[in-house]
Amino acid sequence: MYCVGIDLGGTNIAAGLVDLDGNIIYKDSVPTQRQRQYQEIIKDMAMLAKEVIEKSNVPMEKVKSIGVGSPGTPDCKNGIIVYNNNLNFRNVPIREEMQKYLDLPVYVDNDANCAALAESAAGAAKGTKTSVTITLGTGIGSGIIIDGKVYSGFNFAGGEIGHTVIVVDGEQCTCGRKGCWEAYASATALIRQTKRAAVENPESAINKLVDGDLDKIDAKTAFDAAKLGDETGEAVVKQYIKYIAEGVINVINIFMPEVLVIGGGVCKEGDYLLNPLKEMVKAGVYSKEEIPQTQIKTAQLGNDAGIVGAAMLGA
Amino acid sequence: MYCVGIDLGGTNIAAGLVDLDGNIIYKDSVPTQRQRQYQEIIKDMAMLAKEVIEKSNVPMEKVKSIGVGSPGTPDCKNGIIVYNNNLNFRNVPIREEMQKYLDLPVYVDNDANCAALAESAAGAAKGTKTSVTITLGTGIGSGIIIDGKVYSGFNFAGGEIGHTVIVVDGEQCTCGRKGCWEAYASATALIRQTKRAAVENPESAINKLVDGDLDKIDAKTAFDAAKLGDETGEAVVKQYIKYIAEGVINVINIFMPEVLVIGGGVCKEGDYLLNPLKEMVKAGVYSKEEIPQTQIKTAQLGNDAGIVGAAMLGA
Repeated sequence: MYCVGIDLGGTNIAAGLVDLDGNIIYKDSVPTQRQRQYQEIIKDMAMLAKEVIEKSNVPMEKVKSIGVGSPGTPDCKNGIIVYNNNLNFRNVPIREEMQKYLDLPVYVDNDANCAALAESAAGAAKGTKTSVTITLGTGIGSGIIIDGKVYSGFNFAGGEIGHTVIVVDGEQCTCGRKGCWEAYASATALIRQTKRAAVENPESAINKLVDGDLDKIDAKTAFDAAKLGDETGEAVVKQYIKYIAEGVINVINIFMPEVLVIGGGVCKEGDYLLNPLKEMVKAGVYSKEEIPQTQIKTAQLGNDAGIVGAAMLGA
Repeated sequence: MYCVGIDLGGTNIAAGLVDLDGNIIYKDSVPTQRQRQYQEIIKDMAMLAKEVIEKSNVPMEKVKSIGVGSPGTPDCKNGIIVYNNNLNFRNVPIREEMQKYLDLPVYVDNDANCAALAESAAGAAKGTKTSVTITLGTGIGSGIIIDGKVYSGFNFAGGEIGHTVIVVDGEQCTCGRKGCWEAYASATALIRQTKRAAVENPESAINKLVDGDLDKIDAKTAFDAAKLGDETGEAVVKQYIKYIAEGVINVINIFMPEVLVIGGGVCKEGDYLLNPLKEMVKAGVYSKEEIPQTQIKTAQLGNDAGIVGAAMLGA
């Protein structure tokens, strides 16, 4: 059997036919054109689903379900996206609309949860029952997998680990609170921290790397400076990894997942990021060596996680 | 059918026969005498279990199981307490020892998890599938109930919400980290905050309430001073409730439980504590009014929670 996974993004709709082991048989994408009415967007999603089934040469009776991963707050029970600002969705009945075109069960969840489910089913946490996936991007996305399924609370709005405060009255977060983990450990936060350090330390290699143009600073700049031996760059990187570690330890002390998966562009730094992170986590977790410990791994599925995870919703 | 629940504490062993709705039919207790070998302690637990069954006039064939709630890190699968300093337990095989005296299934978990299970099965969160119970005492105890069962991770050591950092590099916590929620929102933390305020504000009613003896300050003192209109007392209470709220919001953003239960002596303050807490939580949670929200309730079962929750382990 197979499932269709649809990754609805602000820019593109990506869809794939996926087998029950999480392998993509065929995938394609179309532009979202997000300013449109939701009916049009969902019609395109349904057409794309039909296309990937046909191009896979898999008979329709072997397709079990369609899963949709969307940004926003889902009502998974009713297949609705309750709200999402980016797509201007308010109580959008994705399941109902999809089923106008396709006679298949339709599952809906948010994109961070789908990414976590993908890593659990076919990625870095494959073979585990319990895992947490953290994506360090513009914000911090997070998804919790318990007994192989997404956990998001009684109203499907849980799993917002990025919006847990690690510094009471700290940095302003986009969510309205102050001091959220996202405001310290997202890529956006790293860029802010790097800019501040560049201003305070004009002699730093950070400034040279961007030719003095602070707007050119990205999530890689501090790491690049650190690797050149620049003290300011090293300090920014060390403090940033500490912020990641504080949140990771919190997650481990709460969930004790078999695997904690970290994704997002910053993971391209590889062991340069992971080794000190693992050291800090080992030193900080509540339960010490006497018992088995959570493994920290980097995400494996990259851009395909959305498709694979959405497909796995109905697998 | 009925289950025996045993609440193993540092001072007393309490046991009760409990029906499947969580009602205690008969209960009794004996001193733990914790300096003894674990074999002797567990023998007393087994004898007490037999006694409460007999005194309940319930035939043995109607007793389904025995549950033991113990402080420490459990290995629930094997019925072991891996370690606990207070009782000096290291890999104590509670199930195996108990079954020398009683031919019944024996379940083991830690006391905070049992308290949460009790509130879920028969207390403030009765009728819900998903709840989190937080106990503000010497430390912060916490237990997570998902689908009616204790969640504690793959190694049974999770659920340590008290040991999540809310202030990076903040107050020293007993666990070794700095800035844990427990170091800000436990009763111990409130006493520390009250003492500091008393020293900094010698004119405060706090000092008068304890006749100038700071060692007499307890978790009630700041509340008592605040109720007298004392500014210092009011400030301590307000800040303390804020610390509770920050952690509670974190828990809600992660778990979105149907009910979040708060227990511990400080809950005797009732609405004086709960009303401002609920206001702060409402303002701070990530998901706003569009969807159903977590209810905050105070624990109902008090000292019986240990017996009831332990019994429910095998219900």
